[in-house]
Amino acid sequence: MTDEVDRLMAGIAERKVRDLARAITLVENGGPDGLELLRRLAEQARGGAERPRSHVVGITGSPGVGKSTMTAALITAFRARGQSVAVVAVDPSSPFSGGALLGDRIRMQSHSSDENVFIRSMASRGHLGGLAAAAGHVLRVLDAAGFDVVLVETVGVGQSEVEVAAAADTTIVMLAPGMGDGIQAAKAGILEIGDLFVVNKADREGAQTTARDLRQMISLATSQQNATSRQNATGPQKTTTEADDAVAEWTPPVLTAIASTDTGIDDIVAAIADHRAWALDHGELDRRRLARAREEVIATAVGMVRSRIEAASSMSAFEDSVSAVAHGEADVHGAAEALVDEMGSSAGS
Amino acid sequence: MTDEVDRLMAGIAERKVRDLARAITLVENGGPDGLELLRRLAEQARGGAERPRSHVVGITGSPGVGKSTMTAALITAFRARGQSVAVVAVDPSSPFSGGALLGDRIRMQSHSSDENVFIRSMASRGHLGGLAAAAGHVLRVLDAAGFDVVLVETVGVGQSEVEVAAAADTTIVMLAPGMGDGIQAAKAGILEIGDLFVVNKADREGAQTTARDLRQMISLATSQQNATSRQNATGPQKTTTEADDAVAEWTPPVLTAIASTDTGIDDIVAAIADHRAWALDHGELDRRRLARAREEVIATAVGMVRSRIEAASSMSAFEDSVSAVAHGEADVHGAAEALVDEMGSSAGS
Repeated sequence: MTDEVDRLMAGIAERKVRDLARAITLVENGGPDGLELLRRLAEQARGGAERPRSHVVGITGSPGVGKSTMTAALITAFRARGQSVAVVAVDPSSPFSGGALLGDRIRMQSHSSDENVFIRSMASRGHLGGLAAAAGHVLRVLDAAGFDVVLVETVGVGQSEVEVAAAADTTIVMLAPGMGDGIQAAKAGILEIGDLFVVNKADREGAQTTARDLRQMISLATSQQNATSRQNATGPQKTTTEADDAVAEWTPPVLTAIASTDTGIDDIVAAIADHRAWALDHGELDRRRLARAREEVIATAVGMVRSRIEAASSMSAFEDSVSAVAHGEADVHGAAEALVDEMGSSAGS
Repeated sequence: MTDEVDRLMAGIAERKVRDLARAITLVENGGPDGLELLRRLAEQARGGAERPRSHVVGITGSPGVGKSTMTAALITAFRARGQSVAVVAVDPSSPFSGGALLGDRIRMQSHSSDENVFIRSMASRGHLGGLAAAAGHVLRVLDAAGFDVVLVETVGVGQSEVEVAAAADTTIVMLAPGMGDGIQAAKAGILEIGDLFVVNKADREGAQTTARDLRQMISLATSQQNATSRQNATGPQKTTTEADDAVAEWTPPVLTAIASTDTGIDDIVAAIADHRAWALDHGELDRRRLARAREEVIATAVGMVRSRIEAASSMSAFEDSVSAVAHGEADVHGAAEALVDEMGSSAGS
C-alpha cells in the first residue's frame, strides 16, 4: 500500500498522467490508499513552502449550451499563455454507466499529447460523501500537481452539480440563445452563482436578447440575494451563501462567445483574471476556500456515517421495517432512528 | 402540538387545501410536529383497510422542454376522467430564494379553484436528509389524502432530481426538438429512468429526428443497463437499479406531443395506464415502492446524523481544523473523523 502511495506522491509532483489518474481514482473511491494519499499530501504541504494554488474555474450551464466546447477553447487559450491546465468534467452520468460520455473525451483528444494538460471525467453519482466531497479530494490532488488552472465542468442544473460549480474560485455560467434564456437560467438556479456569464453560440438568433434578459435577471437576483442571504447563512448553504455575499459587490459581466470558432475566448480569459484579482483583493478567494474546505469535511464525515448506516441497513430486520414503511404501516422516522442506533452499536467511531 | 396534528389528520382526510399545505410544510421541515404527523399517518394506515394508493407519475426533462405546461395539460386530462390530482413541483430553486418560480404557480392557477387538484412546490435544496427523503415524506401526506394521481415534476438533470423522478411508479422523460436530442438526454443520464418518453413541441423542426434518435438511444441504453446493473446493485443506486432491472422488460414508448395545445395528451394518459397495468402485473410497482421506502429511510437516517454533525461542526475547534484543511495543511479525513467522534460524544442517539 505505502509503496504505491510513495510512487504516486512522486508521480503527482512530476505530473505523470498515469500516476495522476491513479491517484484521483484512489481519492475518489475514498478507500484506505486514498485516505493515506490525502494524509501524505497534507503532510507535504505542512512541510513545504507557500506556493501559488491552482485557480479553480467552474464552468456550468444547461445541457447543450456548449460547455465541453468552451472547456476545450479555454484549454487552448490558457496553454497559449503558458499556463498548465487540468480539467475535471463532472458528467451527470447515467446511474448505470456511471462514467463520462465518449463524446467529451473525443472532443478533448486534441490536447491529449500535451503533458501540461490533464483531463479527467468524474461521475456525479455513487460518491458516499456526495459529489462535493469527492470533487474536493480530486482538486487537492490537482493542486498538489501544481496546475495553474483547474477547469471544473458541471451541468448547471441539480443540487449537487450546482454546489460544485458554486464552490469554484471563479464560476462561469454559460447560456445559449433560445434554450438558455433568463427564465430558464433562473429555473436552473444558476443566476446567483455566476461570477461571469457567457452567452455561447452568439451567431444564433436571439443571442443579444438573451444577453439583455440576463443582465436584467442578474440585477434582480443580486438584490434578491442581499435580501435573503441572511436567513440562509447556516448549514449546507453556507458554502454558496458566503461565496455570494461578495458577488453583490462584484457585478458579473455578461459576455458573448462562439466557442466552436474560438470567438470571444480572449475576453473570457481576461474576465477570469479580473475576477481573480478582485477576489484576491477582497479576501473572497480565502472565504471561498474556507467554505469549500468546511463543506468538504462535513460531507466526508456524512459519507463515513452513511457507509456505516448502509452496512447496518443490510440486516434482515431492516428489510422487514422497510417493507412495513413501504406499505405505509411503519413510521419512516422510527425506522430511521432504529437504523442510526444499529449503526452506532454495530460500529465504533 | 398534538392539537394541531389532530386537526391536520382530519384536514388531510378531508383534503382541505390549507391543512394539506401546512402538513406538507411540517413533514418537509422534519421538525417534531412533522415526525409526529408521519407517525400518526402510519398508525392510521395500520388500523385502516387496504385502499388503492396514489399512482406517482414522475415528469422530468431539461429546463425548457415544457414540463410545467405538460403537468398542467395532464391535470386537465386526469380531471376530465374524474381522477383527483396532486402536483409536487420540485424546482431546482436558487440557493437563496429557495422557492418556486412565480411562473409555474401562475401557469397552474387555472386549476386552483378545483378541490380535487392540489399543487405544491418544493425546493430542491436545504433538506437535511436530501431531496429524496423530503419528497418521500410529502408523498406520504398526499397518499393519505387519497389523491388518485400524484404528478412529481422535477428537472431531469442533477443527481438528487433524477433520483426523485426515477423513484416514481411511472416516470415520464420529456425532450424537445433541437435542445433535447438523444445525446443531451444521455448526458443528463435520464434515458434509463424513462418508462415513457415524450418529445414535446412536436410542431417544431426536428421533432421526428429527435424521436428517432431517442428510440435508438433507448435500445442502446437498455442493453447497456443489463450489462452494468449487476455491479451497481449496492448502496444508494439500489433504488434506481432495482427499479430499472424491469425496464429492460418494458419497452418505453416514445410519443410526440404539443402540451401547449393539449395535442397528444390522451396518448400519454393511455401510456401511463398501460405502464401502471404492466408494473402491477410484474410486481414492479411493489419493487419500486420498496426501493423508495428503503432510500427514504436511509436518507432520513443520514439526515438525522448530518444535523448532529453540523451541530458538532459549530465548535471553534472545528473552525480551526477547517482553516488548516483549507490551506492544505490538515488532512480532510482526519478532520472528518474528529467531527464524527465529536458528534458521537456530543449527542446520544
